[in-house]
Amino acid sequence: MSHEIRILTETQLRATLDLDLPLIDRVETAFAALARGGVVMPPVLSMHLPQVNGEVDVKTAWVPGLEGFALKVSPGFFDNPTLGLSSLNGLMVLLSASTGLVQAVFLDNGYLTDLRTAAAGAVAARHLAPEVRVCGIMGTGVQARLQARAAYLVRPYRHCLVWGRDPEKARACAADIARATGARAQATHDPEALVRRSQLVITTTPSTQPILRAEWLHPGLHITAMGSDQAGKAELEPEAVARADLYVCDRVSQCETMGELRAARAAGLMADEPPELGQVILGEVAGRRSAEEVTICDLTGTGVQDTAIATYALEATGGAGTLIET
Amino acid sequence: MSHEIRILTETQLRATLDLDLPLIDRVETAFAALARGGVVMPPVLSMHLPQVNGEVDVKTAWVPGLEGFALKVSPGFFDNPTLGLSSLNGLMVLLSASTGLVQAVFLDNGYLTDLRTAAAGAVAARHLAPEVRVCGIMGTGVQARLQARAAYLVRPYRHCLVWGRDPEKARACAADIARATGARAQATHDPEALVRRSQLVITTTPSTQPILRAEWLHPGLHITAMGSDQAGKAELEPEAVARADLYVCDRVSQCETMGELRAARAAGLMADEPPELGQVILGEVAGRRSAEEVTICDLTGTGVQDTAIATYALEATGGAGTLIET
Repeated sequence: MSHEIRILTETQLRATLDLDLPLIDRVETAFAALARGGVVMPPVLSMHLPQVNGEVDVKTAWVPGLEGFALKVSPGFFDNPTLGLSSLNGLMVLLSASTGLVQAVFLDNGYLTDLRTAAAGAVAARHLAPEVRVCGIMGTGVQARLQARAAYLVRPYRHCLVWGRDPEKARACAADIARATGARAQATHDPEALVRRSQLVITTTPSTQPILRAEWLHPGLHITAMGSDQAGKAELEPEAVARADLYVCDRVSQCETMGELRAARAAGLMADEPPELGQVILGEVAGRRSAEEVTICDLTGTGVQDTAIATYALEATGGAGTLIET
Repeated sequence: MSHEIRILTETQLRATLDLDLPLIDRVETAFAALARGGVVMPPVLSMHLPQVNGEVDVKTAWVPGLEGFALKVSPGFFDNPTLGLSSLNGLMVLLSASTGLVQAVFLDNGYLTDLRTAAAGAVAARHLAPEVRVCGIMGTGVQARLQARAAYLVRPYRHCLVWGRDPEKARACAADIARATGARAQATHDPEALVRRSQLVITTTPSTQPILRAEWLHPGLHITAMGSDQAGKAELEPEAVARADLYVCDRVSQCETMGELRAARAAGLMADEPPELGQVILGEVAGRRSAEEVTICDLTGTGVQDTAIATYALEATGGAGTLIET
């Protein structure tokens, strides 16, 4: 029996989908489903290609109650910029959750990943951040901008501080954030001052050495660390993770191998099993209990987010794209 | 920088690609590359979905010297026939081996997998089977037919015997094989007679219990067992595997978890590391050394076959399909 498959390009997806509250809500629902059980989410398939300075990650998750499930292919080929190409590319395939038939192929070059990753930051801030006057962003890339926008949707801050190793890039990033949110935004050369002045800090770097020190923590701070997504990366000093009143993982099994929990455990800290974001969303674990607490959320990126964004994208794009009869 | 992605459907692929010697040669070359080293082939990502009686396997392999590498998504949803749908579906994505950019998406519903699986059977027969007058096929499905055709291309037998649990299906399968090859083909109800009369036996069933007994082995026999591709399946009695003069895996790490080697090891047999098909192709390990030997090849299906068929398909289909600018 033939059926139709919808093909959507990055351009078509960008024309319809943007970071907004309905999208964030869908990602939140997916995290709740993950905590509720019944989700099938295999370990990430990771392929390392040192011959071509590349890597490929494949993520997927089947979520009860959703009509489709996504399988995402994320190649990163880090010599591409010398050819004028982006390092990150890839696509998502949406399959029927009941028949396995391919429903759609999103040739998104990572755009849907960008959105679902930023949305997870908003979900973390919604459940864990205190009232936010100052939001600190560490890093100056695509996620620095998107995380600042996502945070603003759930914690409309007045002021944004941006730190990066390259002051020029930090200034450009701050200008973009100011334009996108309407908040005042400025670059800073001092990461310590950024953390001390902020109620919400989001780390978005690929750093392999801690960029945020434990001694900078202060009452009434929430940190979302979303840069580390591989063994070998780490943004927070292990003592910072241990010192927080509440440390929450997107998925413990991922954070202990490729998130901040990995380095903390390697330092002999954090022996207990931490809670997951979905448990906080469901109320099984208390989120922030007072304005003074220090909370941390460790995001490594999960297949349920991909399934959430892909099913959302198919609905939101309506009749757009190319239909292939197969 | 935008680039073009070619989308090809099953219909378009069937119109161009069929099982032939050039295709078999490409799969053979891929096995040789696997033995030569430098191939990156992560373990299969396997997703079990008991809620919907389904499963999804993802395979991939990066092969030195090839311009692309495939990532294959194979869903099997076994309640589909009640809806008039095929159980097996899926697609292959071909990515550039140097930049990771998506080059093509083959919406093949498993057709390319069928071809590359049959081709591996031909490669095994070419290097391991003696002269073949009678070819025995166990099983009556798509692979029964394709394996018989593939074997005929490298060992043009005069007679084909087909055994299956359902005599009606065995007769239909034999008729199809006779039509496709020109050989005489007939169904038999007696698997023992089939094995005793054949110089080449190919087992193509999803059986979880041995269908081929060790006592049926005889001098001058080659067996290719390609049905088992999951823990829990097995077609050969473990003693048959142990009794062969030469037992060859497509990939040892796969055969010991989902091929015939798994059950043989569980029975306390086959403690040594067996050779792989690519080593035989390269001449690192001797294949058949006399007309009297008993040889067995255990095929579980590898990512290098997918990469071989996908790169071949992109070349062979020329300008066919739909071009998507992204």
